[in-house]
Formats: sequence, C-alpha cells, structure tokens
Amino acid sequence: MSSKKTDRREFLKQGAALASAAALGATARSASGQLPGPEAQLPGTDELVAYGKRSRFVDSKRIPHGGRHSPDQFGLDFHIATPLQDSYGVITPSSLHYVGTTRGSFVPDIDPDKHHLMIHGMVDNPLVFTMDELKRLPSVTRLHFIECAGNRANSRHVTVQETHGMTSCAEWTGVLLSTLLEEAGVQEGGDWIIAEGVEEVKGTSSIPMTKAMADCIVCYGMNGEDVRPQQGYPLRLMVPGGEGILNVKWLRRIKVVDQFYMTYNDYGHLRQDPADAALALQIGPKSVITFPSGGQQLPGAGFYEVRGLAWSGQGRVARVEVSTDGGESWFDADIRGEAHPMAHTAFSFNWTWDGEPCELQSRCIDDIGQIQPSRQQAIEFWESEGGRRRVKGQDNSIQPWRVDADGSVHNAIA
Amino acid sequence: MSSKKTDRREFLKQGAALASAAALGATARSASGQLPGPEAQLPGTDELVAYGKRSRFVDSKRIPHGGRHSPDQFGLDFHIATPLQDSYGVITPSSLHYVGTTRGSFVPDIDPDKHHLMIHGMVDNPLVFTMDELKRLPSVTRLHFIECAGNRANSRHVTVQETHGMTSCAEWTGVLLSTLLEEAGVQEGGDWIIAEGVEEVKGTSSIPMTKAMADCIVCYGMNGEDVRPQQGYPLRLMVPGGEGILNVKWLRRIKVVDQFYMTYNDYGHLRQDPADAALALQIGPKSVITFPSGGQQLPGAGFYEVRGLAWSGQGRVARVEVSTDGGESWFDADIRGEAHPMAHTAFSFNWTWDGEPCELQSRCIDDIGQIQPSRQQAIEFWESEGGRRRVKGQDNSIQPWRVDADGSVHNAIA
Repeated sequence: MSSKKTDRREFLKQGAALASAAALGATARSASGQLPGPEAQLPGTDELVAYGKRSRFVDSKRIPHGGRHSPDQFGLDFHIATPLQDSYGVITPSSLHYVGTTRGSFVPDIDPDKHHLMIHGMVDNPLVFTMDELKRLPSVTRLHFIECAGNRANSRHVTVQETHGMTSCAEWTGVLLSTLLEEAGVQEGGDWIIAEGVEEVKGTSSIPMTKAMADCIVCYGMNGEDVRPQQGYPLRLMVPGGEGILNVKWLRRIKVVDQFYMTYNDYGHLRQDPADAALALQIGPKSVITFPSGGQQLPGAGFYEVRGLAWSGQGRVARVEVSTDGGESWFDADIRGEAHPMAHTAFSFNWTWDGEPCELQSRCIDDIGQIQPSRQQAIEFWESEGGRRRVKGQDNSIQPWRVDADGSVHNAIA
Repeated sequence: MSSKKTDRREFLKQGAALASAAALGATARSASGQLPGPEAQLPGTDELVAYGKRSRFVDSKRIPHGGRHSPDQFGLDFHIATPLQDSYGVITPSSLHYVGTTRGSFVPDIDPDKHHLMIHGMVDNPLVFTMDELKRLPSVTRLHFIECAGNRANSRHVTVQETHGMTSCAEWTGVLLSTLLEEAGVQEGGDWIIAEGVEEVKGTSSIPMTKAMADCIVCYGMNGEDVRPQQGYPLRLMVPGGEGILNVKWLRRIKVVDQFYMTYNDYGHLRQDPADAALALQIGPKSVITFPSGGQQLPGAGFYEVRGLAWSGQGRVARVEVSTDGGESWFDADIRGEAHPMAHTAFSFNWTWDGEPCELQSRCIDDIGQIQPSRQQAIEFWESEGGRRRVKGQDNSIQPWRVDADGSVHNAIA
C-alpha cells in the first residue's frame, strides 16, 4: 500500500475515518448550538494599522545553516536557512528568505535617495541612474528562486531546513539588465560583466554577457514591496537559475569587461576556464519533499498529502515523480499551479501510509529533459571527476526520507 | 504625443536623455575607480536572523479607509487600506493587506491547537477538524484578490490608496471547501451555506452551494506562511471574486442550510431575494492606474512606465487598455506575467509625456467579455436602478487621473 498513489475515492474513505472520532464532538457541540469564542482578543494599535505582523503562535524561523555558528556569535560566514518544512505554495515570505554571505551579518544601511547604479566599462555611453530614474524605466515582475551553491553541503543533516534551506523563491520586480546595457551600448568584445555591491568587499561576480542579456534583472521590488536590507536593499541583481553568490546584493556598479575575472565571490569556483565557470552558473534540476521530512512525526497510518518543491536553473519544471518505496517505483506528482522558469514549483502527491517502514523520494525532470540524479549516480559522477563533490554545480541528487514504523521521519542517507 | 504609445526604440532615445546628465557624474567617479561605501552598517541580531524586517527608509503603510477614524481612535468600523501606489507585481505583502471589519480593531488571539472547524447542518456526516487534520488533506495554492464592496465608496478621494486601497491580492493555500463538503455529504435541498467566524458577532455570511462547491477554499496559508491574525488566523474562508465580507475570518463553522439567511454580514445587502443576493457575490471587472496616480508628482516631460492593476470577480483579465487623452483613444497595455482567475493582474504601458495637461485612464476586459464601464455609463446604470449607487456590485467605473502641466496628478472626477 505504501507504494501506491491514492486516488480521490480512496482519500474520501480515509478522510472520513480521519475525522470520525472528532465528529462525535461535532455533534455534541452542534447540539448546544454554541461554540466557545476566542480566549482573548488583541487590540489594534497605530503600528499594527500601518504594518501588520504574524500571530504569536507562529514561530517559523530561519536558523544558521549547517550549525557553523550560533545566532549570537555571527562569524564572517553568515548563512541562514529558510524553514522549508513550514512552506506553503511557492512564495517564501521576505522575512524568511535565506541569506548567504561571507562577510558577516552586517547589512549596509542605504539611503535610497543617495544610491546610484553605474553602468560603465566597455560601453559607448557610461550611465548613472538614481533609484527614481530606474523606477521610471520599463520593468518586469517574475517569480524566481535563488539557491546557495552550498545548499546541501552536508548530506547528513536532520531536517529539510538543514539539508535544503539555502534556497527561497520570491516575486522579483525590476528593470531587465538588457534594457540598461542596450542603452549604454556594449562595445565589441565586451563579453562579460562584473557586478559590484556596496559593501566593503564589494561582492563582485563575473557573469557572461549572454546571460546578462538573456534574463538578468536589476531588482528593486520583492514580494510586492521594496527589496529587504538582507536581500540587498535598495537594489539586487537577479541572475535566474544561477548560483546564489551571483545575485549581487546592494548593487551599485556593473562594468562591461572582456573576460572572466577571478573576484572575491568566485572563491570556491577555483577554475579560471571561462567555459567551466559559465557552466557553474546553472543549478539543478532538483527537488525535495518538505512534508513528511526529517525530524517530523506522523501521527499514524492513514491519508497524507505529500508536499514538496522542485526547481531547475535551466528552465521550467516539466514533471515531478514521487516514490514511496525507496526509488523502485515512481508516480507522477501533481504540479500545483503554473511552473515558471527558474522558479520553485510546488508539487503534491496523495498518499495512504500503511504503517510499514518506507522511504519517500522525489525527482524533478525539467523542460530540457534533465532528470535529477540518484545519490548513486551523483557519487559515480563525482568520482569520475576526480572525487570533487561539487563539480559544475552542486549536489542535486535525490533526497530520501525514511519513515519508521513509529511514524518518525529521518534522513535516509547513511 | 501624450496619447501615443511609446515603442521600444523611442524609449531608448528617451532613456538615453534621461540618464545623460547623471552620466557626467558617472564618468567622473569611474575615473577614480572608487565609489563611496554605505554610510552605516546594521549588525545582525538573533531576532533578525529568525525573521527579517524591512529597511528603516521604507515607510509604505496602510491608512484608515475614507478618513472615517484616526489610527488611534479605532471605531467599530475598522477599515484600513493597502498602499497600492507602492505596489510591485501582484503580491500584496501580508503586512500591508487591507483589513475590513465592522467589529473594531480587536483581533481574536487564537491558539491553533485549540481551534476546530465544524461542518454541519444538512449533511450526512457532521465533521469537526483540528488544524493538524485539515493540513493532512489535499490542498491547493491559488492567487486571489479580496475586495471590500465599499472600495471606492467615495469617488472624490485624492490618492489611489484612498480610492482603491480596499483590495489586495495574495497567494492563498488551503483545502477546497468542496473536499470537506463532499466528505460530509450534502443532503438534498442544502442549497446554501452559512460560514461563521470566531469573533463575538460571528461574521456570518450566506453563500450559494454552487459557489461553495466551485472554488471556495478553507485557507491556512497566505503568501508562504500562516494566515495573519488580521486576515483570520488560523483559518479564513476564501470566496474567489466575491465581496470581501464573504471571506469569513477566524473561520470555525460551516452550516449547510436550505436558503439564504440574512446575517450580520449581509447588512448593506438589504435585499432578501436570493438571486439578487447571489449576483452581489461577484466584483468587477475593474482596473486602476497606480502610477502615475493622485497625489503623485512627475518630475517633468519624458518617458514613464504607466503601471496598474486589473481584476475581475468572474474570471481572468483578458485585456487592459490605457488612454492618455481622457478616453478618446485606447491602446493595449502589456499584461505582466500570467493572468490568474479572480486575481490582481499587473499591467504596464510605455508612455512619453509631452508636458501638456492630459488625462490617464485604464479599462479592464475580462475573459467572459465584460468591459469596465465609463463613469457616465455607471451613472446611467445607477439612475436606471432607482438612484442606488451600488446595486448588484460596487462602483467599478473607470478611474481617471489628470496630469497638470506642472506634473502634479489629480483625481479627475469633479
């Protein structure tokens, strides 16, 4: 039973069983015609009128990634991970969007009226824009994920927040970088750009001109409001599908250059071959089941909606498959809503757990036909590349979750 | 010129002029190879690691609707409006989602572990669900707007937040109401439901069974996290395209009944004819230009991206047209991204203002062919209905904004 997809009729039978005990209570209470009211009410305040906040009963929060530092001992390696186990849909709330930086938890405190973006280097007309000028230009709004190349650096983590929390997805708004570059006039031989942030080490990244012109966005909006300070307020470069480190925060300057330059942000990509570096731009295809996931506890056998996220740095998610028997048999999951290019795509799978130990897996197939590899395939690939774990992209192998007979869920990678 | 759509080549010419003065500064600064860094940096804290916040330079905020009360003198008529003039894309940040209630600013402070949803009345199997049980069931995630029927109650307001701010749009996640009703088994003649909230006056609403089964959602998720308290935490009923008041907050009970019942929330809909009441379920088609909009100031002639939102309570936005000459000539606006059913749809229009006084308008055409009416058409309709301003839905007439020669923007409704 655990390997079988549950159809609608089966769910209805299961569901009826699910709520039947509670239904007795329902009848009892409806007989009286009254239900208890809330225990307390919270008054409105000027502050809550202006800008609301979440319930005190909701404590979903980001945590330091990989236990590298405690929240009150912030090192230069400041990485905090999104609670994917609490995710609904595909929007990551801006307050919970992951942050990755190697220059500490300090955030530039930028007055937007004093901020400028410069386009210069190998261009006919160097340009400087104020924020107001940028906002007058033709803009786009697109859903895109960002993912740190170090996501899943340690395959043995316990929870999905620890294994996969260094990726998030938001609705980004801004001006296409191609609009600005076309206006500046890129000169012959200007085949790369270097994007620079405002912080002291500048967070520069080298990006091929083909990618810069294809779909990069100079973003001032995120999830319907201004980009948050931890995400680069007032401007962040969005490089769809690229490694997180390319999405330069606190963006102030884009220089058109003739070659790949090894910059501070390219540490970790210790290869100077431009073709090799460019290949590292794209992430995935990848997917992970967020419920049930490591550290969670199923109350018992019965119906569950298995949920997860899938994404690819090279296009749309075309299909997601789920296995409940450790990868022996696979079933199509339901794609929830529209699959957008280089965006998290939510999937779900109706499942009736028979109470026996089992292993849940998901795999993503993108619209250029790439299939997320098994763990074994990934290991064989890494070994063929000389044992380096992250060659040409990071660990995008399938994440298995083991469900024990007691309903506890565990990372199945030994 | 003001009535002409600006094509890409024209924009590029305009754009080059736009940034040319600043470009001198760019050259000067790039010559030194250095740009100033940020003036200050803000350190990370435990709190900001867990849950981020916006920049201190961003002050976009909700305001009391229609000046009915000041923020520190909350009356029972508690309505606060979204700052649409600051919107990006189609997601309204949960902190800025409009709130409408006629029972004051107090918010039930609900412990989700003690909250239940009851389905009862004319059903075969009355049911009660805990929050955990609801979250195990098959769910959906959909983008939907909510709009207060009183949005635009006063056509002479100054800003777009005042005229149209009682609508917002979010990514909602939850269980289809049809899933729960099918499980309970609706009995013959159960043609309506009454949905009830937890607060003392219960915020009940009568909704036809056809609508309940079509697309209503019992929502626990909003924009990727739990529904906010001001929006009904932990459960809100989503009635896509219906008047805001139908979207019962703090939902605890759904009763299947045989007829439309006049409830507290149906005040204002003083008609007992069920067919008439049902017609009031649907809003629009409607649209409004958010930039440039009333109270804003254009710095001078030149290129602008005109931006706005369109929506319809009966389907998708099929087309949006923009006029820059007070409705004499119309041009297709660009639809931004995917138009979802019963969801805000962002549009934009490339425009070069020649500096002469002009009037900007937008109109929405939905996918069942409805066209947003002109002010004059709406007035004639209201007069034919006996002078009542809001019969069968609210004021969805075209919003005109007048741009004066000095660049100031005004509500053109005299």
